[in-house]
Amino acid sequence: MANAIVSQSGGPTGVINASLVGVIEEASKHKEIDRLFGGVHAVSGIVKEHFIDLKKLSIGTLERVAGSPSSALGSSRDKPNDEYCGRILEVFKKHDIRYFYYIGGNDSANTCYIINNMAENQGYQLRAFHVPKTVDNDLRVTDHCPGYGTAARFVACALMGDDLDNRALPGVKIDVIMGRHAGFLTGAAALGKQRDDDGPHLVYIPERPFTMDQFLGDIDRVYKKIGRCVIAISEGASGPDGKTYAETLAENAERDAHGNVQLSGTGALADYLAGQIKGKLGIKRVRADTFGYLQRSFAGLQSPTDVDEARRCGRQAVLYSMKEDNGSVAMKRLGNGANYGVELFRTNLSEVAEHTKSVPDEFINAEGNGMTDAFVEYAAPLAGELPRTEYLGNYPKA
Amino acid sequence: MANAIVSQSGGPTGVINASLVGVIEEASKHKEIDRLFGGVHAVSGIVKEHFIDLKKLSIGTLERVAGSPSSALGSSRDKPNDEYCGRILEVFKKHDIRYFYYIGGNDSANTCYIINNMAENQGYQLRAFHVPKTVDNDLRVTDHCPGYGTAARFVACALMGDDLDNRALPGVKIDVIMGRHAGFLTGAAALGKQRDDDGPHLVYIPERPFTMDQFLGDIDRVYKKIGRCVIAISEGASGPDGKTYAETLAENAERDAHGNVQLSGTGALADYLAGQIKGKLGIKRVRADTFGYLQRSFAGLQSPTDVDEARRCGRQAVLYSMKEDNGSVAMKRLGNGANYGVELFRTNLSEVAEHTKSVPDEFINAEGNGMTDAFVEYAAPLAGELPRTEYLGNYPKA
Repeated sequence: MANAIVSQSGGPTGVINASLVGVIEEASKHKEIDRLFGGVHAVSGIVKEHFIDLKKLSIGTLERVAGSPSSALGSSRDKPNDEYCGRILEVFKKHDIRYFYYIGGNDSANTCYIINNMAENQGYQLRAFHVPKTVDNDLRVTDHCPGYGTAARFVACALMGDDLDNRALPGVKIDVIMGRHAGFLTGAAALGKQRDDDGPHLVYIPERPFTMDQFLGDIDRVYKKIGRCVIAISEGASGPDGKTYAETLAENAERDAHGNVQLSGTGALADYLAGQIKGKLGIKRVRADTFGYLQRSFAGLQSPTDVDEARRCGRQAVLYSMKEDNGSVAMKRLGNGANYGVELFRTNLSEVAEHTKSVPDEFINAEGNGMTDAFVEYAAPLAGELPRTEYLGNYPKA
Repeated sequence: MANAIVSQSGGPTGVINASLVGVIEEASKHKEIDRLFGGVHAVSGIVKEHFIDLKKLSIGTLERVAGSPSSALGSSRDKPNDEYCGRILEVFKKHDIRYFYYIGGNDSANTCYIINNMAENQGYQLRAFHVPKTVDNDLRVTDHCPGYGTAARFVACALMGDDLDNRALPGVKIDVIMGRHAGFLTGAAALGKQRDDDGPHLVYIPERPFTMDQFLGDIDRVYKKIGRCVIAISEGASGPDGKTYAETLAENAERDAHGNVQLSGTGALADYLAGQIKGKLGIKRVRADTFGYLQRSFAGLQSPTDVDEARRCGRQAVLYSMKEDNGSVAMKRLGNGANYGVELFRTNLSEVAEHTKSVPDEFINAEGNGMTDAFVEYAAPLAGELPRTEYLGNYPKA
């Protein structure tokens, strides 16, 4: 018998707490695990020995945790180097912690990997497992990541509503969505399309750089054809030089009297693009929103598939740790549509830690400004069933 | 027997379509009404005789309409003057329309009022009824407005998630919420508070102007006490001179090479405030989001109370029109908490058309930076039951 620790790292998601509860419920079944510590604020709390006793929590508390967005144990943006990881390992030794479950993205897998190697080299028996989470869906090996489906559901529902809003009061609408390097979440904007002329009519993701002329030309074409245009664009959208438009903006930013950069705020990209459209296309009604943190931490909006898979991944990490030394939990898709399902498998930490994944070519249309049916087939089951909507304004005239 | 028309005006809401369906289902019961036209894009479509036949819609379509955000008949921002209203009346006469149901805010009540008076003066028998809707909740006479509860639910769920996100990764977070003159919707940010230290810790609404020094002083105090601060602020928040901060920003805006104003975009106020906090309080992690159109048109997120009341208001307008000449549907609250309920009553169009309502004093704390328990008692039943959340990071140490 030895102790275990679980912690949550990086940006929160809508279901990272379901993975936490999966770890807790499974760990409670195994006599190999004595105490189960929750490391508060990830690595930054672990080195301070800021632990709580997770086996003491009631079932009611656990179910509320599983349904809550964000990271119930707190998080951290620290990317520990060797020295930092060495301090973590010392804390593990001090508390006889021999099971380490770390829920996070590829940086967290990397932390797991470093600590695991260090323990091996020092002859300290430790079982280190990574549980995947990210709204960006950019982890390698796994078919998709827990956290993505729920964020995708938010984005899809937002665009469905926003497109209806744009039908009611036509104009150009720009929605800036999370994703600095990978366009999976922005692509989810297309999941709620039900009618031929439903928006988003244009989708721009980091995988397909574009010139401002292309962007404006696309919008002009759609607007002239249907009298309105809804655009989903990643915060990491970039020009042909590889530099993101947001970076270019920040570099050109004016500074106010107090030296504060004014154009590098969260709304700056959306506002800049709206300005370009108004100024260069002469379209009067142009609106822009930046979805911000709502898309990763919104209470009461989980994708049923996502929350179920996140919990399974947490449980599975504990199951693997009973037999194997280390690894990351991954998902393999068994089918699509009505046959959708996943089976879990173990992959090496190093496979997940090093690089990230981009949206594959077959998910992006030839023009680089929209998603394909193959993408919708991939992402739709992850977001869960979406509401059906209705618009009457284009029904036959009486 | 004569014909009837229903139309939707102004900014969409999450339940204005439920009111539309209420009108349709009730109108279908009364033999006094022959055809029921849907006027597409409000007054701007009515003058073009752009009608659809609403009695032809299937029950499946109607239920999907009732569940869809935004205005299923399209909307318009036109504020018709006498000449415009005269053209509308001519269209009514041409199509033997003698029942007019107009779903909208106080401007729509005013349009109803003008057309009704005009018809009376010309001896044309017309029954003109206004059905209230607005996310701002600023209509007079009625206890509250359909549309508010659903938008309040969105804002409450957003702040609940955002506060948990801010616990996980502490810092200052600013959320800019709709409301140019009335702070009801921004106040809804407080509805999801469950723990003593839950955010939003500060709420600023248009009814309480403040200086930038007060604002920064408030934040500094909260941040020093609990190490983080979540702020909800209305887009119409203003300084002691009565000018909104957004207006001041736009006036001071730099223009880029193309003459586009850069600081007057939707994200500008949030980014400006974030810049002030970083620059003057020296707090490193400051984030800001502007909720934008998501809070009024998000698919799949209706308050059960709100959608029910919106539909009742639509039905009631038709019922009143069977006996009375004109009016606006209003709600009277029968009780609070478990005794919450409303009864509907008719009020004069002129009562609703002229002015709007502000958040009453008893709903705002003495410091002018937060909402009172009385406000929560008022608004909570409108938003409907909210999810329970859990945060573990402040549980006792193991």
